Order: sequence, then C-alpha cells, then structure tokens
Amino acid sequence: MRISELSDRSGVALATVKYYLREGLLHQGEQVAATRAVYDDSHLRRLRLIRALLEVGRLPVAAIKQVIDAVEDESLPVHQMLGTAQYALGPAVEPEPSDDWQAARAETDRLIDEQGWTIAPDAPTRNELAQTLLTLRRLGMSTDLSRYAETAGGLAAAELDALPLDGSRESAVEAVVLGTVLYGRAFDALRRLAHESESARRLAGKDQTPPAG
Amino acid sequence: MRISELSDRSGVALATVKYYLREGLLHQGEQVAATRAVYDDSHLRRLRLIRALLEVGRLPVAAIKQVIDAVEDESLPVHQMLGTAQYALGPAVEPEPSDDWQAARAETDRLIDEQGWTIAPDAPTRNELAQTLLTLRRLGMSTDLSRYAETAGGLAAAELDALPLDGSRESAVEAVVLGTVLYGRAFDALRRLAHESESARRLAGKDQTPPAG
Repeated sequence: MRISELSDRSGVALATVKYYLREGLLHQGEQVAATRAVYDDSHLRRLRLIRALLEVGRLPVAAIKQVIDAVEDESLPVHQMLGTAQYALGPAVEPEPSDDWQAARAETDRLIDEQGWTIAPDAPTRNELAQTLLTLRRLGMSTDLSRYAETAGGLAAAELDALPLDGSRESAVEAVVLGTVLYGRAFDALRRLAHESESARRLAGKDQTPPAG
Repeated sequence: MRISELSDRSGVALATVKYYLREGLLHQGEQVAATRAVYDDSHLRRLRLIRALLEVGRLPVAAIKQVIDAVEDESLPVHQMLGTAQYALGPAVEPEPSDDWQAARAETDRLIDEQGWTIAPDAPTRNELAQTLLTLRRLGMSTDLSRYAETAGGLAAAELDALPLDGSRESAVEAVVLGTVLYGRAFDALRRLAHESESARRLAGKDQTPPAG
C-alpha cells in the first residue's frame, strides 16, 4: 500500500507517519520508484505498537525508540525484549545516598527472594519498590508487603497465560504494555471500589443508627 | 505554640503555613493578643494531613480544600468524609456520548453487583472503571475483570482492618489517602516484578537452551 493508505488504515495522520519514519520508529517502506515507497502489514503492526506505547503507556518518544530498537534487534531474546518495554513503563527512581535507603533496598531484595522470584539484579523496579517502602517506613506505616507480593504473583501467572508469545515480536510487546497498564488501571479502580464497599459495610450502618433510647 | 514553632515542628515553611491559613486549609489559631495567635496539636495534625494530600495524593489545592471541608463538617458521617478523600484520588472521567460507553458502564455496574459491593450510584470510580473497560474492548482485549475484583476485595478487607477509625477525623482521612496511594503504588511495582519473574521462568530458559543435536 502507499503511505496515504497506511495513514488511512492505521488512523495515524500522514504527517505523523512521516515523522515516525524520520525518527526511525517506523521502518522504511520498499522503494519501488525514486519517489514512491510501498508499505505492508508489518508497518500497520508497528504503528499499532507505537500508538499503544504512546497513548496507553504514555511513554516519551525517546523511550519508545528504545523499545522499538529492542523489537528490531532479533538477536535479543524475547524475555529481554519484553523487559525493555516493561522497565520503560515504571518511573525511574534514583537511589538516595542514605542508610535508610540502603535498608529499604535490602528489604526489597529480601521480599523478592522470599517470593522465589527471578528478577534481574539491576531491574529498575527494585529501586521503585524500595522508594515506596522507604516512604511507608518514614510515615510509620506497615512495610509488610508479603500479602501484596503473593497476590501479585497469583495475578501475574494468569496474565502471562494470556500473552500471545507465538506471534510477532511487535504483538508480544504490545500485549505486555497494554496488559500491564490497562489491567493495572482496572485493578487500581477496583481496589478503591472494594474500599468504598468495605467502608460502607463497617461504617455506614453505624452512622445511620439513631441514638438508643 | 507560636506560628514559628508550628512551622519548625511540622517541617512546613512559615510562608506556606501562612498561605494555608489564608486559604482556609488550616484553621486559625487562638488569638491571645492583637498580633499573636497560638497553635496546638490539632494544627500539627492538620498540616500532616495537608502534606499527605499534597505530596503523596498529589491533589490540587482546590481538591484539598474539599477534603478539609469534609473533615471539618462534623455532621458528615465518617464513611462519607472518607469517600470525599477517596473520590478525589481518582481521575475525573466524563461519560462519552456513545452506545459503546453505555455498554461499558452497564458492564461496570454489573461487575459491582456481582461482587455484592455497596457503591454509591454516583461514585466517580464507576465512570473511571467504565472507561478502562471501554479501552480494553476497543483493543479487543479480555474485559473479564472478575478475578481482579475478587482479588481487590480480599485486599480491601485487610486494608480496612488496619485503618485507625477511632482517632481524629484527620488521622482517618490521612490513613485512607496514604494507604490507598502507597500500597497501590507498591502493588503496581510488585505486579510488574511478578511479571518479570513469570516471564523469566517461561522464556529465559527457552532462549538460553542451545539447539538440540
């Protein structure tokens, strides 16, 4: 197909398609004449992935480029390719130069070990979790996250089952990004709904009871 | 204590304390002379709550004012006061004028009913979840969230147990905001860690196995 049809079928504006080509996010089409290139389904798939990273993952263009590079590097194993996308979704957290921080990071590593999880030593998610643990500790709140970890582990197994790992590299990365963000968002809303219901069960009746006598 | 000591002990800059007083987020101190007011523990507690709403909840000042108004309105039952804070933490989602949206909203309401949850008919969380369901449906992804709902329900009961509902109204709201945001953030990081581990278990071995023969 020509670039105009690629734009129509993907729903991505022509100027944006050209921008992705210039930035190397979208691979070049096949040059069939000096001023004419043709595009195929691989370009449609790529545009779907870019939209997922941009609109749902809310990644900046530089991070999208890193993920695309990992998708295009066929020598990179699928697990590492997916890791590139997944790491890009989390906030980048810098370690604090403090003993408190070291303790929180050690507690994070211990929690991961206790779950028997296989996590890269330099996974940025470790620092992300350490920072939240540190905030909880400083506020005097419970830092026992083992129940959360077990619950997360149960969900993750089911989520990985649904992952289309036998298709293109693009579609596997797209599924990881969309699934991580959208089901994460859904779970967060459901948790707040469950809080409201639990609070209603415990408190609303109490509030509405007229004083005795 | 004088306003300078209130600033020192709370760790909130003097100019900021004065700003909160002007905006009505912090209640006035007791006027003991024409140019001198004194403050007490209730002001320290309030400043803690404002910081939690601002720094952890990342709420804008207008939303903080609404939550504070609910805290100060002693005629408002605790359940509704907590709801004000909890609703402020979620994104405000406007319904779309489309049949797709109506269907997603109906599916949300059905999911809530199936869980036997007590949720206000006008809870903004309903629209928030409906929007995520609509995005999942448009992307052709599974919209079966019953497992997530059950998991969220299990966590919420334990989280409400830990809520200090017998203290001041301030401390109950503070605990709801901090717990919702920080444990939500921790769970999100743990879910991504569990994904990485599950992906390593399923894929990393495969990637590293040398071809047979």
